[in-house]
Amino acid sequence: MKICAIIPILKEEIFEEITYKELKSAARSDVEISVVSIEKGPASIESAYEEEMAAPGILEKVREAEKEGFDAVIIDCMGDPALEAAKEIVDIPVVGPAQSSMAIASTLGDKFSVVTVLDRLAPLIWREVKDYGYEDQVASVRSVKVPVLELEEKRAEVKAALLRESKKAIEEDGADTIILGCTGLIGMARELQEALKVPVVDPGVAPLKLAEILVDLKLSQSKVVYPKPPPKEIRL
Amino acid sequence: MKICAIIPILKEEIFEEITYKELKSAARSDVEISVVSIEKGPASIESAYEEEMAAPGILEKVREAEKEGFDAVIIDCMGDPALEAAKEIVDIPVVGPAQSSMAIASTLGDKFSVVTVLDRLAPLIWREVKDYGYEDQVASVRSVKVPVLELEEKRAEVKAALLRESKKAIEEDGADTIILGCTGLIGMARELQEALKVPVVDPGVAPLKLAEILVDLKLSQSKVVYPKPPPKEIRL
Amino acid sequence: MKICAIIPILKEEIFEEITYKELKSAARSDVEISVVSIEKGPASIESAYEEEMAAPGILEKVREAEKEGFDAVIIDCMGDPALEAAKEIVDIPVVGPAQSSMAIASTLGDKFSVVTVLDRLAPLIWREVKDYGYEDQVASVRSVKVPVLELEEKRAEVKAALLRESKKAIEEDGADTIILGCTGLIGMARELQEALKVPVVDPGVAPLKLAEILVDLKLSQSKVVYPKPPPKEIRL
Amino acid sequence: MKICAIIPILKEEIFEEITYKELKSAARSDVEISVVSIEKGPASIESAYEEEMAAPGILEKVREAEKEGFDAVIIDCMGDPALEAAKEIVDIPVVGPAQSSMAIASTLGDKFSVVTVLDRLAPLIWREVKDYGYEDQVASVRSVKVPVLELEEKRAEVKAALLRESKKAIEEDGADTIILGCTGLIGMARELQEALKVPVVDPGVAPLKLAEILVDLKLSQSKVVYPKPPPKEIRL
Amino acid sequence: MKICAIIPILKEEIFEEITYKELKSAARSDVEISVVSIEKGPASIESAYEEEMAAPGILEKVREAEKEGFDAVIIDCMGDPALEAAKEIVDIPVVGPAQSSMAIASTLGDKFSVVTVLDRLAPLIWREVKDYGYEDQVASVRSVKVPVLELEEKRAEVKAALLRESKKAIEEDGADTIILGCTGLIGMARELQEALKVPVVDPGVAPLKLAEILVDLKLSQSKVVYPKPPPKEIRL
Amino acid sequence: MKICAIIPILKEEIFEEITYKELKSAARSDVEISVVSIEKGPASIESAYEEEMAAPGILEKVREAEKEGFDAVIIDCMGDPALEAAKEIVDIPVVGPAQSSMAIASTLGDKFSVVTVLDRLAPLIWREVKDYGYEDQVASVRSVKVPVLELEEKRAEVKAALLRESKKAIEEDGADTIILGCTGLIGMARELQEALKVPVVDPGVAPLKLAEILVDLKLSQSKVVYPKPPPKEIRL
Repeated sequence: MKICAIIPILKEEIFEEITYKELKSAARSDVEISVVSIEKGPASIESAYEEEMAAPGILEKVREAEKEGFDAVIIDCMGDPALEAAKEIVDIPVVGPAQSSMAIASTLGDKFSVVTVLDRLAPLIWREVKDYGYEDQVASVRSVKVPVLELEEKRAEVKAALLRESKKAIEEDGADTIILGCTGLIGMARELQEALKVPVVDPGVAPLKLAEILVDLKLSQSKVVYPKPPPKEIRL
Repeated sequence: MKICAIIPILKEEIFEEITYKELKSAARSDVEISVVSIEKGPASIESAYEEEMAAPGILEKVREAEKEGFDAVIIDCMGDPALEAAKEIVDIPVVGPAQSSMAIASTLGDKFSVVTVLDRLAPLIWREVKDYGYEDQVASVRSVKVPVLELEEKRAEVKAALLRESKKAIEEDGADTIILGCTGLIGMARELQEALKVPVVDPGVAPLKLAEILVDLKLSQSKVVYPKPPPKEIRL
Repeated sequence: MKICAIIPILKEEIFEEITYKELKSAARSDVEISVVSIEKGPASIESAYEEEMAAPGILEKVREAEKEGFDAVIIDCMGDPALEAAKEIVDIPVVGPAQSSMAIASTLGDKFSVVTVLDRLAPLIWREVKDYGYEDQVASVRSVKVPVLELEEKRAEVKAALLRESKKAIEEDGADTIILGCTGLIGMARELQEALKVPVVDPGVAPLKLAEILVDLKLSQSKVVYPKPPPKEIRL
Repeated sequence: MKICAIIPILKEEIFEEITYKELKSAARSDVEISVVSIEKGPASIESAYEEEMAAPGILEKVREAEKEGFDAVIIDCMGDPALEAAKEIVDIPVVGPAQSSMAIASTLGDKFSVVTVLDRLAPLIWREVKDYGYEDQVASVRSVKVPVLELEEKRAEVKAALLRESKKAIEEDGADTIILGCTGLIGMARELQEALKVPVVDPGVAPLKLAEILVDLKLSQSKVVYPKPPPKEIRL
Repeated sequence: MKICAIIPILKEEIFEEITYKELKSAARSDVEISVVSIEKGPASIESAYEEEMAAPGILEKVREAEKEGFDAVIIDCMGDPALEAAKEIVDIPVVGPAQSSMAIASTLGDKFSVVTVLDRLAPLIWREVKDYGYEDQVASVRSVKVPVLELEEKRAEVKAALLRESKKAIEEDGADTIILGCTGLIGMARELQEALKVPVVDPGVAPLKLAEILVDLKLSQSKVVYPKPPPKEIRL
Repeated sequence: MKICAIIPILKEEIFEEITYKELKSAARSDVEISVVSIEKGPASIESAYEEEMAAPGILEKVREAEKEGFDAVIIDCMGDPALEAAKEIVDIPVVGPAQSSMAIASTLGDKFSVVTVLDRLAPLIWREVKDYGYEDQVASVRSVKVPVLELEEKRAEVKAALLRESKKAIEEDGADTIILGCTGLIGMARELQEALKVPVVDPGVAPLKLAEILVDLKLSQSKVVYPKPPPKEIRL
């Protein structure tokens, strides 16, 4: 099985490396992982605006992945940018971190909280909660107040803040399950879960694992609601 | 007051003319209307994919409109493409046909139906219904089964189909109000309303009228949930 | 265009004057405003009981307004008293402050809070939120704890309390937009908006502006759900 | 225990007699029943308008009932007219047919349908369904298409239509429980239930039975959300 | 009328006595009460696990009650264990404390809170709130943190905690009505209601009172959604 | 990885064999499958009653599976019987067909329909839809009208009926995705999917695949809402 993860921002070697390493380690042994970045778009995604500016670049990579024979595609950003459009243009399953993390979390408890990186992402995450139908299953959206591009350098601070905000989510907001709210937090769930004693879903690897089983089950997005766009002129 | 309507597809003189004429006739006398198309993007919008491909072109025009001193911007397509992103990047109100038509319809009755052009648009409209919180106020989404670019030439057929589908929406689905589901249907509401004896909302002019009163009331989208994107590199 | 605002309480010159002045200043130049009070009913409205006692007087004035050739009617009280009934008995649009303010606010952000005058009005406003289908878009209902008839004399105190409660609504309850929760607060939105930096909707003028565009668009309440009452004996 | 049923229309001996007879036969032996009509208001209630015109007359009788020592009051009309206001002005429980019938039906199955007298009442009943929070438990609202004042003379026709529409509700709409949708249908539930083999709730007697147990349990509406109106001038 | 209350735990004379005394005192004079415990199952119910382990014993007693000529059955535990199954196997009404208490509370105010015995019961009560469709009418679920089997000996402590938590429910969570969240709290509602000045529903007696009126009204659960199980082998 | 599937009915060699064969073929190569039936309980599950009668037997097997070192447990029946209780008593993930199938289906489209074996199962499946929060994502529940124990012998008839009912679900009810509504239909999804051209989820294998990734991700049900039951006497 071959799965392609698209990092929907301008290429940074370090991000591709970390993502590859974590995905490889999370994947089952028979899964081949490929990681690509987009060629046109923003340096990071922290707004609906940047999601839109990344979309054409993402969609190009999604189409390429199908052509190159991948079995599934991951759009590797918690905003699930261009997910609906991507589901239209290919037949292979396209999976996003938010949708897959919420689907998995919904089987583990009654209420989840999302702990993300910046307050400004909270409205975007609330809209995903609504889009995917989890309004009655979300306890809160909290943030550690660190920009995406500073996550690596501030790793200790980020970990401490994740623990603090997750505890508040459980004790004050009524969450029983935590979803990390940015794929830049990949690899941090395990340690947090051990400290909190509640399930912590890693949005960096959740879509990979959902993709694996969709491919096994020969399931993909329904063409009834994601029909192929009609052929027509698109000027770029 | 100056209002800019952005037609989010590649320029067609005829569409700009019709749109200008209808908006001008619907606007109050003190409102100056400007109509522009986008320079990069699709020839028409009939999928989430085409919405995404139009987004960068739309956002460019939104930003220009604010710089040029417009008081409000309309994104003139029933899919409200790039609406959330556009609300982030400017301070002037940005208004979409679906959001404004549904807000107006919600004050006129208990249940509305949307009658759009193609079946394939129904999932997109259902997602807007959910995004804007009208799940409990929608009776159905129906279509006349005519592509956007054939609306002008098939005008008689379209009118007959609008009447037929709207009647079914009222009699079979429980609608008391109709929203036309494509801005390409601009100018067809009045006649339909007279035939049906229920309110028919024209998404071609609804955003203009909402924009007029938002400007009067000095209201615009809340920056709490539509904060300005942080400055960063975006490669195009 | 001629619009009639019905103040649904016993006549007080001062209220009629303030209301006229504010509506006149908010109306577009081609709109003629008329303000009337009811002849039978309560001195102010602060309960469901007083809404019911005002209803026959309101409905009488609504019917008169249509006969006198008005293009639309406003029931000028945040409880939208007798709104459903009024929509039945006339063909011209009847608009209420709560319904129009919430429809407008819903296009500006994700969550609004209503800041009203008295705690005892909160249940009434929550019921309007439910009636109009905004349960998922309301952050909270708060109050400044000043009776309607003392609003004028305690203006400074009221302004300070509006600012304080609105800030709490934003910071503690998650609101991004504020709706003032009493038409007695007419004229106070602008200053508050400047202080808060979020949109503040004035329920004193919102129904006027919605009425203006409904008249322009030749839209009125659907007779499918607001049919004319059958003729029959009513003893008064 | 003494319970007062207020028929919210102008006095008709025959209605008072039927209502008394049916309530007396449904009441437990230790309950004293009193039936009164209102002195000012409409001849029958088939619109929101007539509900409003009946409200002052109803509220007067509600207050009198409390003064005369009744233990509970029933507002004997499926529209539950003035129910919220009545709950404010007295301490004894005030019960309406729609609210009590829906509460009882909700314990008997998963989905109920309301079968009422006229199509024009359907929007009013749908609004009650929403007000009382039963949107997810209602299958449909249907009608027998007979005006309230003709129910007695057309008894056979009404029964046949109730059976026909209830069957459709069960077979086509998914109802498992039927609520009769007008107190003028009092006494018709038993026979219908035997024919249908599903529970049929009689809104003529349901509020009496709920009132009986509320009085026994010393429960009444919460003054937190139904506070006494403040004393003030009300001109009649 | 004969009503059987099944205490779904292993027999304790004292529980049967208290339950009998309280039910007898709450029942109308013509109702004969019988109280039985189950022969196989847990010593108390404080988890979904114990509810399941009690179910076969409950269902055996439910069937016996119908055979012995009882007119209705109460499953006397706030978790309403085996309620759906019990409704299938008999024709007489089967009533649970949670379902009946919530139905009654829903007629008294806008939002209720449940105050139960242990925090660990909160998820079970939240699931009942969802099952019965009261998500929009619940303010909170709180607990006094005392195990079921210690309720009698710690009566003073329990009363103080009920008062404290109920006050918080009203003042902090927005409740206007309280439901006690364990049938072990039977008999404590009256005093609490006097102290709080809001309605307090006793789940120990609520199902009895609902059962009384269902029997009077000849209403029972709908066999459309609770059909008799087909005959088949069940090994015990 | 070792996964135990519990068939919650009395042992039938043939069911165990079919289940083993299908699970083995759907499992990844490194997963060891074990299939067990219960020793006490019903011959098949077609009612809430039979679910309850199977529960103690299921819970015994769940506990044994954990003791024997399994990594996850599947309760192999579409009613997810005893699922909540099972999640309490062990630390390893417990997965049910309905919950896992709906979670997976929710990532593939906007609306799914469940096509089950008997009409009498529809209310049970609607309750699962509500419990798991999918009310807004379900199009319909349909049935092929064949009892569970006749599925094998009537295989051709069942296949034809599945195709017919699934087509109706798509064309008449608005479904874009189908979930088979009985684990007795295991192995029939693939062929149906090819005929329908929409995703068809097999509830016989969905829980296995979800279990595989939960074990990989070291995720299990949250002990905040599924705490271990306190030790106490349970008489069997």
